[in-house]
Amino acid sequence: MHITVWNEYRHEKKNPLVSEIYPEGIHGAIANALKEDGYDVGTATLDEELHGLSDEVLNKTDVLVWWGHIAHEEVSDAIVDKVVERVWEGMGLIVLHSGHFSKVFKKLMGTSCDLKWREAGEKERLWVVDPSHPITNGIGEYIELQQEEMYGEHFDIPAPDELVFMSWFEGGEVFRSGCTYRRGNGKIFYFRPGHETYPTYHNKEIQRVISNAVKWASPIDRKRPVYGNAQPLESIKEK
Amino acid sequence: MHITVWNEYRHEKKNPLVSEIYPEGIHGAIANALKEDGYDVGTATLDEELHGLSDEVLNKTDVLVWWGHIAHEEVSDAIVDKVVERVWEGMGLIVLHSGHFSKVFKKLMGTSCDLKWREAGEKERLWVVDPSHPITNGIGEYIELQQEEMYGEHFDIPAPDELVFMSWFEGGEVFRSGCTYRRGNGKIFYFRPGHETYPTYHNKEIQRVISNAVKWASPIDRKRPVYGNAQPLESIKEK
Amino acid sequence: MHITVWNEYRHEKKNPLVSEIYPEGIHGAIANALKEDGYDVGTATLDEELHGLSDEVLNKTDVLVWWGHIAHEEVSDAIVDKVVERVWEGMGLIVLHSGHFSKVFKKLMGTSCDLKWREAGEKERLWVVDPSHPITNGIGEYIELQQEEMYGEHFDIPAPDELVFMSWFEGGEVFRSGCTYRRGNGKIFYFRPGHETYPTYHNKEIQRVISNAVKWASPIDRKRPVYGNAQPLESIKEK
Amino acid sequence: MHITVWNEYRHEKKNPLVSEIYPEGIHGAIANALKEDGYDVGTATLDEELHGLSDEVLNKTDVLVWWGHIAHEEVSDAIVDKVVERVWEGMGLIVLHSGHFSKVFKKLMGTSCDLKWREAGEKERLWVVDPSHPITNGIGEYIELQQEEMYGEHFDIPAPDELVFMSWFEGGEVFRSGCTYRRGNGKIFYFRPGHETYPTYHNKEIQRVISNAVKWASPIDRKRPVYGNAQPLESIKEK
Repeated sequence: MHITVWNEYRHEKKNPLVSEIYPEGIHGAIANALKEDGYDVGTATLDEELHGLSDEVLNKTDVLVWWGHIAHEEVSDAIVDKVVERVWEGMGLIVLHSGHFSKVFKKLMGTSCDLKWREAGEKERLWVVDPSHPITNGIGEYIELQQEEMYGEHFDIPAPDELVFMSWFEGGEVFRSGCTYRRGNGKIFYFRPGHETYPTYHNKEIQRVISNAVKWASPIDRKRPVYGNAQPLESIKEK
Repeated sequence: MHITVWNEYRHEKKNPLVSEIYPEGIHGAIANALKEDGYDVGTATLDEELHGLSDEVLNKTDVLVWWGHIAHEEVSDAIVDKVVERVWEGMGLIVLHSGHFSKVFKKLMGTSCDLKWREAGEKERLWVVDPSHPITNGIGEYIELQQEEMYGEHFDIPAPDELVFMSWFEGGEVFRSGCTYRRGNGKIFYFRPGHETYPTYHNKEIQRVISNAVKWASPIDRKRPVYGNAQPLESIKEK
Repeated sequence: MHITVWNEYRHEKKNPLVSEIYPEGIHGAIANALKEDGYDVGTATLDEELHGLSDEVLNKTDVLVWWGHIAHEEVSDAIVDKVVERVWEGMGLIVLHSGHFSKVFKKLMGTSCDLKWREAGEKERLWVVDPSHPITNGIGEYIELQQEEMYGEHFDIPAPDELVFMSWFEGGEVFRSGCTYRRGNGKIFYFRPGHETYPTYHNKEIQRVISNAVKWASPIDRKRPVYGNAQPLESIKEK
Repeated sequence: MHITVWNEYRHEKKNPLVSEIYPEGIHGAIANALKEDGYDVGTATLDEELHGLSDEVLNKTDVLVWWGHIAHEEVSDAIVDKVVERVWEGMGLIVLHSGHFSKVFKKLMGTSCDLKWREAGEKERLWVVDPSHPITNGIGEYIELQQEEMYGEHFDIPAPDELVFMSWFEGGEVFRSGCTYRRGNGKIFYFRPGHETYPTYHNKEIQRVISNAVKWASPIDRKRPVYGNAQPLESIKEK
C-alpha cells in the first residue's frame, strides 16, 4: 500500500505565515502524519517534473491525496487525464479543502464544484452524520476547529454516495464537509478543512480522519471490468 | 387529490401560548394554507374516534401530514399499522418536527429516530442543498426562522434517499432537516421546523415547502406489485 | 414548457432498415409522441447549423432529449459545454440508449460510461424497481421488448441517485436501465432502450416513460445559487 | 472480532436432501468457511435457549450472520428487539436469502420485504455492479450458480445505500441481490443466494462474499451518539 500526497506547494513559498505553520509544506505535514500510522508515503508537488506524477509514481500509488488552491489551471490536462484514469482503475483519491476546484475533482464530479466562502477565521464544527462509517473511526461526535475559512452551501456537487460529516460555521452557514463518491473501480473522499493559514493539518483528529479515509479508499483485488462487444447469444445458449 | 392533516392537538388545549398562536390548532393552520393552494384538505386529531383515521378517511387520503409530540404512545398500534400499510400502497406522508418520534415514522425508518434538542428560541437557517428538487420550488437559498427549537445531529435516521434541506442553529448544531424516503409505493418527506410555541406554520416559506412536499408525495397511477409465487419456469420458456 | 428532441440523424439517412422504421427520424417519432401528450416540442439534429442548438433554442428549452450513436465525436465541444451549463442552470436532460457515450453525458457523469453490448435481437424486460417513482406512472411491473440490442453490466456510471428500471436480457445479462441524476439545478434521466434497427420508440409504454421523464425533469422556479465570496462575518453578527 | 452465525436449523432436521448437503447445518457450513478465513466464529440456532442469543452472546458478537425461512414467527420479539438494538449500537448484520422475511430484517427496513419467488432450480448470475466495493474483493465480473431458487423484483425494500450485486435468472427476472444499509452505528448487508436444497454455501465465491461482508460490516471504535437535551445555548455562547 503506497500513498502519494500531492500539494500545489505555492503558498508555502510565498507567504511566511504559511511556511511558518507548514515548514515542510502542507504535503509534508500530511505525509508525516500518515507515516506515523505506518503507511508507505511519498509526496509530489506542482513544480516538479510532470508535477511529480510520472506514470511510474501514479501506477504504484494506491491512494492519492490532493491539495491545491491558486494554481489549479497550471496542472496539465494530460496529468489530469492520467489521474482520472487511475481512479477509474481503482486508485483511491482524497481531495482536501480547496481541491474542490481542482481539474481532477471537477472532471470526476461533472458539476461546477462551486461554493460560498469567507476568510474570517471563524469557528467550524464538523458533525459526524454517519456514525457507522469507517472514516469516523475513533472520532467523537464532532471535531471543533477554532479558526477556519468558511465554505458554505450551496456546494455544487452531485449528491454524495455517503455523507459522513456536515460542518457548522459561526457566521450562519452549513456545508457537506465529508463526502464519498465511487467512480469506476475507485473510491473518492472529499474532506473540507485545511485553509493554508491555519494549522488544521496538525490537528490530531483531522489527521485521524485523513488516515481513516486512506484506509477506506484503498483499492481492492479487482481488474477493470471488460467492456465492449459481449459473447454471442448463441454461445451462451449452448452452454 | 385529498390531503389529511393529522395533529395530536393537545398542546393547543393546555397551553394558552400555543392556542394563541394556533387558535384553530396546528392542523388548522396547515390545512388553511394548503386550502389556499387549492388542495382538498381534511383534518384529523388524536382524541377523535380512531384518531380521526377511519378506514374511509385513510383510503381516500392521497397525502397524510403528521404532527405529534407528547402523546405518541397514545396512538393505537392498529391505526399505526393501517397508516404504514397505506404508505406502502402509495399514500404520501409528510412528517413534521416532533413527528420524528411518532410510531408511524419510527416503524417506517427502522431506526430510533432520536436526536439532540434544546428549547432556547434560537435562530435557525434551513439551507437548500438540492436546488433541483421540486420541494424547493420557489424557495430562496435558505429559510431563516428567528426563533425555533434546536434539533441537532446525530439524527438517528437511515441515510435519506434525498437530502433537501440542512439546518444551521445559533448554538453550534446542524441537522438534516428536509429528507425524502420511499417505502413501497409511497413517498415520505420529513421536515424539521414547527415547535408549538413559535408561529412557524404561519411562515409563508414554510407553508410553501409543505405545499410543494404534498405535491411531490402524491401517489402515481400504480397498484402494489404482485408478490409471492411467480409464473412457472416452463411457461416462460414456452412463450 | 418547451421540449427539444435532439437526434444525431445519421442512421436514418444511410440505412433503409432504419428509415423504414423511422421515416421522420428517431427525433420525429419521439417528438410526435410527446406532442400527443400535449407538450410543445421542437427538434434539432447534428447536421444543422450549431447542431440545431443555438443559444436561442437552448435558452428556451426546458427539457432536452438526446439520442446519438455513431457521431458523438462530431458534436462540437462548444455546444457540449453550453448544454452542460444549461443542465446546471436547471434544464432537464433525457439521455437515450447509445447516448450513454455522448460527450454531454460523459461530462456530466465523470466516468467512462462504458458497458457491454451485443446486437442479437434478443428479448429485454425492463423491471420497475422503484414503484413510487413518477417516471413509472401508469407502467406495469415490467416492459417487455421482443427484440433489442443488449446492454450489460458493468455499466460504468456513478451510482444513480435513483434506480428506476433494471433490465433482464435473454443472453444472461442485467443492466441499470433507468437512472436519475441531479447536477446543479438540473435533473437527468438515462433510459436504455432504443437501438435504431428496432421500433422501440413506437412502443406505447416506452413513449409513456419518456413522457413521464420529461415531466419529472422539468425545471422548477429557482435561480442558480450565489457562489463565491460570502457576506462578511461581522455583518452577520450585527444582525 | 467475534462472529455469530445464526440459523433456524429446521430444514436440516426434517429434509434428508438438505441434511445431506449441509450435514453440520447451514450454520456449520458458513461458520467453517469463516473459520478458514481466520475469524473467531460461534453458532446459534432457533431451538436453543434464547435461540442461542443470550445477552452474553449478543454483546460479544461483532457481526451476526442470519439465515431463517419457515419459522420466522417463532423468533421471540424480545430477542428481535435485542438484535435490532445491537445493530444500532454497531454490530454488523449479514442477512442471507430467505432471511429477507425475518422479523429482524423487516424491523430494520420499515417495508414488507416481500418479493417474487420460484423454486425451479434455474440458473442465476450475480453481476457485480459496484466494482469498487470491498464486498466484491477478489470476485470476478459475476458469480454463476447453476441451480438456485429465483427471487424476483419487485423486492420491497428501501433503496439500498449501496447496490453491490444484481441477479439475472433464467426465467426472466432480475433482483437486487447484494444490498447495504446503515442503521444507527451498524452496517447491514443483505445477500440473496442460499436456498436450502442447493449447495450454495459450499461455493467458494459465495463464501468469499460472505467473508468480505463480515469484514466490511465490522464495528468501528465509536459509542452510540448522545441523544436528548443538549447543552444550554448560554453556555455555548460563553465559550
